[in-house]
Amino acid sequence: MNENRIVQLLKSRYSRRSVSIKKGIGDDAAVIRPRGASEYLLITSDMLLEGVDFRVEWTTPLQLGQKAIAVNLSDLAAMGARPRAFTVSLAVTRGISERWIRDFYDGLTDPKHSMGAHLIGGDLSSSRGGISISVTALGESLERKVLYRHGGRAGDIVYVTGVLGRSAAGLKLLQKSIVHPRTEPQRAALRSHLSPLPRCEAGLWLAQSGFVRCMMDLSDGLSADLPRMCAASGVGAEIDEAHIPVLDESRGWGFNPLQLALHGGEDYELLFAVSKRKADLFEKVYPSNLPRVTRVGRLISDASKILMISESGRRFRLLDQGFDHFR
Amino acid sequence: MNENRIVQLLKSRYSRRSVSIKKGIGDDAAVIRPRGASEYLLITSDMLLEGVDFRVEWTTPLQLGQKAIAVNLSDLAAMGARPRAFTVSLAVTRGISERWIRDFYDGLTDPKHSMGAHLIGGDLSSSRGGISISVTALGESLERKVLYRHGGRAGDIVYVTGVLGRSAAGLKLLQKSIVHPRTEPQRAALRSHLSPLPRCEAGLWLAQSGFVRCMMDLSDGLSADLPRMCAASGVGAEIDEAHIPVLDESRGWGFNPLQLALHGGEDYELLFAVSKRKADLFEKVYPSNLPRVTRVGRLISDASKILMISESGRRFRLLDQGFDHFR
Repeated sequence: MNENRIVQLLKSRYSRRSVSIKKGIGDDAAVIRPRGASEYLLITSDMLLEGVDFRVEWTTPLQLGQKAIAVNLSDLAAMGARPRAFTVSLAVTRGISERWIRDFYDGLTDPKHSMGAHLIGGDLSSSRGGISISVTALGESLERKVLYRHGGRAGDIVYVTGVLGRSAAGLKLLQKSIVHPRTEPQRAALRSHLSPLPRCEAGLWLAQSGFVRCMMDLSDGLSADLPRMCAASGVGAEIDEAHIPVLDESRGWGFNPLQLALHGGEDYELLFAVSKRKADLFEKVYPSNLPRVTRVGRLISDASKILMISESGRRFRLLDQGFDHFR
Repeated sequence: MNENRIVQLLKSRYSRRSVSIKKGIGDDAAVIRPRGASEYLLITSDMLLEGVDFRVEWTTPLQLGQKAIAVNLSDLAAMGARPRAFTVSLAVTRGISERWIRDFYDGLTDPKHSMGAHLIGGDLSSSRGGISISVTALGESLERKVLYRHGGRAGDIVYVTGVLGRSAAGLKLLQKSIVHPRTEPQRAALRSHLSPLPRCEAGLWLAQSGFVRCMMDLSDGLSADLPRMCAASGVGAEIDEAHIPVLDESRGWGFNPLQLALHGGEDYELLFAVSKRKADLFEKVYPSNLPRVTRVGRLISDASKILMISESGRRFRLLDQGFDHFR
């Protein structure tokens, strides 16, 4: 049993057609069209669980709130939606202080991370286990331009935003008990892990630009997420090892930057494809004030292959070693 | 610290005005109006946690799914909305079987409990603690007729649907290890507790009827929920002990029916108020095929008083002894 298999099972069993539901299970967010509405409404839910997704020794309640909203907005960003509102279900152990709860909600509603989405409700419960957080975020399309995981075609150029593996490097620093690093690159890695910023502006621009064929966010690592986008698009992919924007500094911290970039997860960057014909123009017009985009490979017609091309030109299978809750 | 206090805190800190948000924190569901939409969209989130809200020894995964969707739809019913779609965040311990997961989702999507709402997405995670379930349900208004907790006025007649205390009686039977009762009333009590049916049809009728001034669902017990409706409406209330529709049979099981009805919680019945002038007519036209409604008291102008009038005519304060996660 693994996550992809369960999602596939749910998708096949519970996909119902309905005029108002444009996209149900299986993408970064569901897409519905309320009666008479001029725009689509996008809905996504994401959980953070103590001991699985975070440790209270490593994060402040403020950061935890910032991360809980950011990981949800990342799913909206991946489809080009504008964040509008969210609910949060929070279960905490009985002894928790009012201060902790206030700090957590301050994090959730921090404009830098919540990007204008309003907290509109939720649920609050005591927990016998650890802290459990589930956020549901609602977004709105702009001119109904929404990007899905499907839509990519063989030959398309594959891009990612930002740097991959920084969040995983942050996690590894914490695991080495480096909780208060002295250098800025290490602090940035911790920030990436503890309170990531969703790529909402980039996602919106990419969806509006007309250049992008398919998109998703990178939450479980390139090696886990790229196969999902490829499966939805019915294609394979080739990735150029040398082109992956890794976090070079992390080598000096004793880590393998490439491994972190491929399998680390939680980068909340965007993964997308642009038709080859338009790729140069796309790169030319892409705004310089948005997170940089990097060409990392291309989609190929053989849907069974997710390949990596090493610097020496050797091709090998990119095995999914990304994060899976059930592996 | 208690739940009401935390919700009050959140409401005062995070209530933001926005043209599209008609109602944020503080009612059974949030109400938004998507751009151009002809109807309101209602959103509610509710959690069920192992060890707090359920025990795996007492419930099947099918029942657990049925309950998880029902408790959410009850919030939509309380505002008169029609269930449309929902997401579910599910965290389960690693060893869980695919069968368990399938049964749970079959319960969630069971038409009798999900009332036509479509499963459109969610999140799936492993858990170090117990099972954690958070559902977010979306509903749609009909002709924009939505009922809130506010709107009640002194003099209004207070009603409830169904019987109160049946779910709590079911829980008490389970606590006495009566897991397979032999009599139908006991089986019905277990069903009420393990797989309640949301009062969607009644809620929709009540909202459409024009008779109802304010409404909410009874999830934490009359003694906890009535003060919430009163606070929102700026009134107090008097309840006639003799009129509360208790589960008489439960006396024979060794329980106190009145205590269960007042403080038991999880009945998921509806609590609402109708102007005194229209109460007789309302009772005359209320459809006989919907769960019965019972007059239990009236709203009074003194907002500081939630009173109970005993059969002998004595008045005393109805103390909130309903379920509170933080008490």
